[in-house]
Amino acid sequence: MKKIHIIGLGLLGGSFALALKKVKPEYIFTGYDSNPKNVEDALALGIIEESAEQPHDDTDLIVLATPANTLEEILLETLDQVGPSTLVMDFGSTKENLCKAVSQHPKRAQYLAGHPIAGTEYSGPKAALADLLDKKVFIICEMELTDVHLKAIAYEVLESLNMKLRFMDPEEHDRHLAFVSHLSHVSSFMLGKTVLDKMEDEKNIFDMAGSGFASTVRLAKSSAEMWAPILEENKSNVLEALSLYIANLSKFRDKIIADDYDGLKGEMKKINKIGDILDLGR
Amino acid sequence: MKKIHIIGLGLLGGSFALALKKVKPEYIFTGYDSNPKNVEDALALGIIEESAEQPHDDTDLIVLATPANTLEEILLETLDQVGPSTLVMDFGSTKENLCKAVSQHPKRAQYLAGHPIAGTEYSGPKAALADLLDKKVFIICEMELTDVHLKAIAYEVLESLNMKLRFMDPEEHDRHLAFVSHLSHVSSFMLGKTVLDKMEDEKNIFDMAGSGFASTVRLAKSSAEMWAPILEENKSNVLEALSLYIANLSKFRDKIIADDYDGLKGEMKKINKIGDILDLGR
Repeated sequence: MKKIHIIGLGLLGGSFALALKKVKPEYIFTGYDSNPKNVEDALALGIIEESAEQPHDDTDLIVLATPANTLEEILLETLDQVGPSTLVMDFGSTKENLCKAVSQHPKRAQYLAGHPIAGTEYSGPKAALADLLDKKVFIICEMELTDVHLKAIAYEVLESLNMKLRFMDPEEHDRHLAFVSHLSHVSSFMLGKTVLDKMEDEKNIFDMAGSGFASTVRLAKSSAEMWAPILEENKSNVLEALSLYIANLSKFRDKIIADDYDGLKGEMKKINKIGDILDLGR
Repeated sequence: MKKIHIIGLGLLGGSFALALKKVKPEYIFTGYDSNPKNVEDALALGIIEESAEQPHDDTDLIVLATPANTLEEILLETLDQVGPSTLVMDFGSTKENLCKAVSQHPKRAQYLAGHPIAGTEYSGPKAALADLLDKKVFIICEMELTDVHLKAIAYEVLESLNMKLRFMDPEEHDRHLAFVSHLSHVSSFMLGKTVLDKMEDEKNIFDMAGSGFASTVRLAKSSAEMWAPILEENKSNVLEALSLYIANLSKFRDKIIADDYDGLKGEMKKINKIGDILDLGR
């Protein structure tokens, strides 16, 4: 029997508990959220059995699943308080600042820097799904800095969720995520804004959304409370990705202005390759 | 019994025939495609019963479902040749140039300017789906210029496919589509390019695609042969949409540079409204 405490009872924290309960019904979950409504919902949905601001002393694993800009403070405080046999793991979308902040902590070896590559555009405990993490990638940074025995707790849990472990440096993680995830969100939000600014008639937007818009704008439904902090934490990488994206759009626009449709066609054909990459796993 | 001839046996032309055959098994379909492999596939898949470069004289409806930049020539030629009881309808993604080109044709009243708002990122007859058009919007431009008796053929067919008819000016159509559809494709292609240029390791792209990338980049799998002509046909509207998009991205970047995270948050919250609009129909 294991005791798990979750701080941040939203989409990820909630999905993690729901999934784990299915395969490990003997586990006991406690949890906390700064929003009392989330605690109430998490109890009602069976995400946690008990609301507790502090984890019990014999908790095996503490999971931090709060917005990116809150993690540093919560992680350092949590490590200050835990006993020697508790592992602290986070689910943050950025890793570089966090790993730096914790690097000199005397209990650094009790921390595992993690990031499950899964999500939806919805948030909060009611958005949690028992199959959200199933077969998804879980990135671990600086795995060599975590105590080998405590690490085993995380591996057991992540394996029972069918997650695929990947290992990378925090810097590499943040750079890649800026391109593959954070830029996608910015591009989607700005697409939503461009359409909303221009088209006053909402019925027209809805009627024509089937033409590809619904898919590209999906991420613009995402929580601003969650995403502003991610952009803040990963500022330099996001700015690099965003600047390259704007430059590519501008060059593409220049080709349209110049009526260089063969050039556009050639470029689009090269980019079609992305389909093969995304279909790798099928 | 009706005879329908389809020119362009790809995703849309093929899906149209497959859907109509389900509800109207008595209809007979002939068709043509400049690519002999598409004709062969369309015959094998039961999209058409007979390959024919020219429609039979007693054909009731000719559907043009070829790339946007080929439609003008095919439409004018087809109208030149048809008898008085045949309706010609197109499925093109742009309408302004086409409606202008046909405006002085002596058989203008035998043409219906249409655009089904449906598609996938795949193309060709093998990508055709019998349910692709089901309950989707079908936009008709300049409906008042089509002969009332011939129009009835189109309405009967479109209604039996459960399509929702919307009416708009060709100029309005092209302006809206530039924002809701064409810009989505450009944003998606350039997102794909930005990520491909930067991340050499394809395995990393694949591993992290779950983080929102797969959805926003989906349209970058689309056919270059189909999309370059659409950008060409709708050049001025696409340039306007693309310039506004780039300006919005640049302003968003400025806010990140200025550490204005409250500004970013406020902006993202406003854009979240797009979710309510897209969910209108649910």
